[in-house]
This record gives sequence, C-alpha cells and structure tokens, in this order.
Amino acid sequence: MYDQTIPQLDKMLGNLDTWLGEASEWAEHRGFDADALLHARLFPDMFAFDRQVQSACDTAKLLGARLAGVDAPSHPDTEKTLGELRERVAKTRAFLASLPREAFDDAATKKVYLPFLQGGFVLGAEYVTAFALPNFYFHTTTAYALLRQAGVKLGKRAFIGGMNVQRDA
Amino acid sequence: MYDQTIPQLDKMLGNLDTWLGEASEWAEHRGFDADALLHARLFPDMFAFDRQVQSACDTAKLLGARLAGVDAPSHPDTEKTLGELRERVAKTRAFLASLPREAFDDAATKKVYLPFLQGGFVLGAEYVTAFALPNFYFHTTTAYALLRQAGVKLGKRAFIGGMNVQRDA
Repeated sequence: MYDQTIPQLDKMLGNLDTWLGEASEWAEHRGFDADALLHARLFPDMFAFDRQVQSACDTAKLLGARLAGVDAPSHPDTEKTLGELRERVAKTRAFLASLPREAFDDAATKKVYLPFLQGGFVLGAEYVTAFALPNFYFHTTTAYALLRQAGVKLGKRAFIGGMNVQRDA
Repeated sequence: MYDQTIPQLDKMLGNLDTWLGEASEWAEHRGFDADALLHARLFPDMFAFDRQVQSACDTAKLLGARLAGVDAPSHPDTEKTLGELRERVAKTRAFLASLPREAFDDAATKKVYLPFLQGGFVLGAEYVTAFALPNFYFHTTTAYALLRQAGVKLGKRAFIGGMNVQRDA
C-alpha cells in the first residue's frame, strides 16, 4: 500500500507546487495580483482555489495518517497567499516523508472510519482505491483547471509529472 | 492489480454515465440544446467535453487491455450527442467486464510500452499508479467540472459514488 500511494502523492504535491510557482510568475508577467487566484471558483457552489489546494493536501495527509496509524498534524486553513499555499504543500510532503514504510504493512485490511460514514468503516484498500485517490485527484485536477482558466501555461505533462521509464537493453 | 483498478474504473464510468443523464435532464429543464455541451471547454487549448469523456473511456479501456494482455477494441471518436457518449461509456464498461480476473495475475510486473515514451516502458504497477489512474481522474474530473460550469446540479457524492461500507457488529 505504501508503494501504491505515498511516492505518487508526494510527486503530485511536487507537481502542484510547480503549478503554484508558474502561477506566481504568470501573475507578475501579466500584471495581476497573484493572491486573487485564491478566490477563483469554477462555479459559485464549488470550493475556491485555496480550498482545492487545502483539500488535496488534507486528503494526502489523512491517507498517510490513517494507513500508518498515526495522528495527522493540524494544518489550519489560514493561507492567504500563493506562497502560504506552497508552505502548506511543503508541510504535507514533510509529513508524508516522516512515515516509515513498515507502518503500512497491514494497511490494506485496516478499518478506516470516515466522519461522513456515521460510525461505518471501509477497509484500507477500499479507502485508497474508492475514496482517497479519487478525492485527491479531484482536488488537484480542479486546482489545475482553475489555473488553466486564469491563463497559466500548463500542459498534461505538468499534471502527470515524471515516471520511472525503463528501456530494453 | 485487478481489484485496484477494474471495479473502481467501472464504478467511475457508471458515475460518469449518471452525470451525462443529469446533463440531459438539466438541458431539457433549462431549455438549451444538450448536445452543445460536447463543445464546452474550460480554456481554448484544453480538450472539449466530448474529448474529455472519450479520453476517460480510452484510458480505462487501454488500462484493461494492457494489463490483461489483450487487444483493445476500436472506439472511433465520432460521438455527436450526449446519448452517443453514453453508448461509448457503455461499450467501455462492457469491455472491462469481459476481462477475466486471472489475466491480471502478473500485471504489476508487465512491461507497458506507451506511445509517447518512444520505445521506453514502465512496469504495470507504475503504469497504473503514476499514469493511468491520474489520467483517468484528470479526464473524469474535467468532464465533471464542465458540467458543473454549465449548471448541472452535481455534488462530491456524485463524483465519488458508492463505497463498500461496513459496520462493527
């Protein structure tokens, strides 16, 4: 379960950090207040950009904490600038990096109690596949979409990031 | 690898089918041509809605074909209506349902040659985690975002779908 989640979440958070850096540069180049991006929404009843980034971070953080069986650090949603959102991403990555691989040995069969299941639980493997990863990609994709709509020059390669490519000898 | 991919892709494609049905009803209720949605884009150099749905379907189809080691059926991108997109989703689900679980036994270590890797390959586990699932959720989330922007009433529950919730005795 570790290999299926933590390195990939870390990489995607690194991609997100790169997009945030590109957004700052674009705002400067184009001449608008970069931090106004934090309030951008695709539709009035969807989360704004800040909340999309915070939700992506929290989904990654909680996946790590729940599967490893440790408490998640508290990260209050107080960010007001792109720079502060980048710090939030960095704190999340540092937490994921602190989790020992062995802590995930029995993760697939762990009972994961989610607040909105009202006392119900899903097993770890189901939690990852059917909730945490879809939710993580929902928020990262929506954050990416909001930056694209604001004109930030990003492409699919910036979304996917690097892969462990091999070649036949 | 089967459990980590096929049932979840099938469920998400079922969710997508539900969103397409909601979009038709919303268009009728609101009084606009539902098929105009196929041309909606978040930004001029992003794929339009039809291509987002087709790409989600193809990512799921190709994952199944590559991991199971069978040829993928040809699904030309000729859809012109929401109804035809729903048929594309249905064809994709039927293909996934045809794949026997045992065909995935050695999927994690299969070499997957992707066209854009110019002769390079990734192993099956890396392909799923670092490319196919992120790409699938990218296209499903972007399709969802376009429907939300057009006013279709959907929420996070419609995105995530059902889970295998259990309760302590």
